[in-house]
Amino acid sequence: MPADSPSVPSGSATTHPADWLVAAVDRAAAPVCVGLDPVFERLPDSRGGGRGAGGPSDKVDAMTGFCRRVVDAVADVVPCIKIQSACFERYGAAGVDGLARTLTHARSAGLVVIDDAKRGDIGISAEHYAAGILGPESSGGLAADWITASAYLGVDGLEPFLKHGGAFALVRTSNPGGDAVQGCRLEDGRTVADMVAGLIAETGRDYRGQSGYSALGAVVGATKPDDAARLRQRMPEQIFLIPGYGAQGGGIDDVMPCFHDNGRGAIVTASRSVIYAFEPGDANWPVAVRDAARKMADEVGQAVAGQS
Amino acid sequence: MPADSPSVPSGSATTHPADWLVAAVDRAAAPVCVGLDPVFERLPDSRGGGRGAGGPSDKVDAMTGFCRRVVDAVADVVPCIKIQSACFERYGAAGVDGLARTLTHARSAGLVVIDDAKRGDIGISAEHYAAGILGPESSGGLAADWITASAYLGVDGLEPFLKHGGAFALVRTSNPGGDAVQGCRLEDGRTVADMVAGLIAETGRDYRGQSGYSALGAVVGATKPDDAARLRQRMPEQIFLIPGYGAQGGGIDDVMPCFHDNGRGAIVTASRSVIYAFEPGDANWPVAVRDAARKMADEVGQAVAGQS
Repeated sequence: MPADSPSVPSGSATTHPADWLVAAVDRAAAPVCVGLDPVFERLPDSRGGGRGAGGPSDKVDAMTGFCRRVVDAVADVVPCIKIQSACFERYGAAGVDGLARTLTHARSAGLVVIDDAKRGDIGISAEHYAAGILGPESSGGLAADWITASAYLGVDGLEPFLKHGGAFALVRTSNPGGDAVQGCRLEDGRTVADMVAGLIAETGRDYRGQSGYSALGAVVGATKPDDAARLRQRMPEQIFLIPGYGAQGGGIDDVMPCFHDNGRGAIVTASRSVIYAFEPGDANWPVAVRDAARKMADEVGQAVAGQS
Repeated sequence: MPADSPSVPSGSATTHPADWLVAAVDRAAAPVCVGLDPVFERLPDSRGGGRGAGGPSDKVDAMTGFCRRVVDAVADVVPCIKIQSACFERYGAAGVDGLARTLTHARSAGLVVIDDAKRGDIGISAEHYAAGILGPESSGGLAADWITASAYLGVDGLEPFLKHGGAFALVRTSNPGGDAVQGCRLEDGRTVADMVAGLIAETGRDYRGQSGYSALGAVVGATKPDDAARLRQRMPEQIFLIPGYGAQGGGIDDVMPCFHDNGRGAIVTASRSVIYAFEPGDANWPVAVRDAARKMADEVGQAVAGQS
């Protein structure tokens, strides 16, 4: 079974990013997240722009309109949205403008918002990214609550994010190629992912909220169930963001070891299996998207409730 | 002494990113790069916008104007410009527009252009970043020749960049915190950085140009001289991008082990020590910036020439 959940200090809820996320998950009774990975060529035909539209701005407008409708469809089903920054950044400044509009809309819909930007630089540059991306007053207008970030440059590349919001550090990613680096074994028997997990746990201790969880979380792929229980032990105070559910092959049994016994401590995220859960030409596609989100929320929510 | 340089296949020069970079360095007789890390508060008073200007767009315009003048000042002194993406991304869409204008201007000035964006994601997202950032036809309008990228997600997160341009993978970074991850020792005696270097060397083999160097290069900090010679051995076909020269403490003796015996194989980059090499209020600041770039180019160029 997973490790014990962190002890919860007494006191009222705050705007600490971990507390807000935990509270949102509790309200929804579903520790799940919908990932927005909009690709122009995959948008439903019923969208205004449709295929074959002109320049980057047209494509971004179509993507942003699609994301807005997905957000509206799932906002009372899931507590949290993750946006793949690369999908928008593909279109440069126009794309980042669309990203900002999408993030702001999701936030105004009451969702906790994760910018899946996987930034990772030295401290002074991480501070620029943090200021531009995180928080309602972000200088870049993105207003995200959490960001995903690389830990390869160590702690000084992560801490700047924690002054502005929450950060999920990449510990064990869901892709096949991640094994070549993250699975290497150190002389003390730990894997590289274990070692990064230890660094995250140690650094995150100074950033705990009232919920007991830290503003420094961890990305742990749903496709790595063998590692999940061990990483849960090593990072008792981290919220796990779990990509790879659905389209990438991770199932409910794979993600359960990421949760604490009380059903907290992790967020399962699915992208393509939810946002493209419709037949070509389906004019009522938002209903299909909502149904797919509901199905995932029920599946994970019930599994977690049955555990606690 | 460093390892042997790669063998050079016969044939004419191509637009392969490594070949273009090697040719540009040879023409300038100076394996150096100026790093543009524009921070609004540090811009010279003589700039139009000046301090206290209004919104993000005004700040970006001032930063872009500053970068344009730096590029013009150093374009016939150095072969290469590296732009810190975070400085612009701090200002969201307006910042990315300024980044695009800066990159385009540097490219039109004949410089090889590196977008220091340190992206690192799974394959499908890396493809979005690559398409948006690299090449004259980039969908994001950035038109960079090279990008910096994280290797923590393995090869599938790196190869998409190589279809569009060159990528310097983060192997050994210049910041103090990098040691905690990159310096860890594996059970076979290698460090994590050594292991990543092996992965880069192996992956890069399929992407060599006529010069013998690969489109997959490596970031190796000037502040890690003890590691440099070993990493040079492990990555004989990688061009090293060497940050940390100057302001971060790395000196000429620290960077020499990164070069091959023929003086090729590495680019030394300095940012703050060049672009802010002026006194407050100096109306002729571009001259001071040019002099600082010239001094670095001479110092590194002569050291490398003396070696070969």
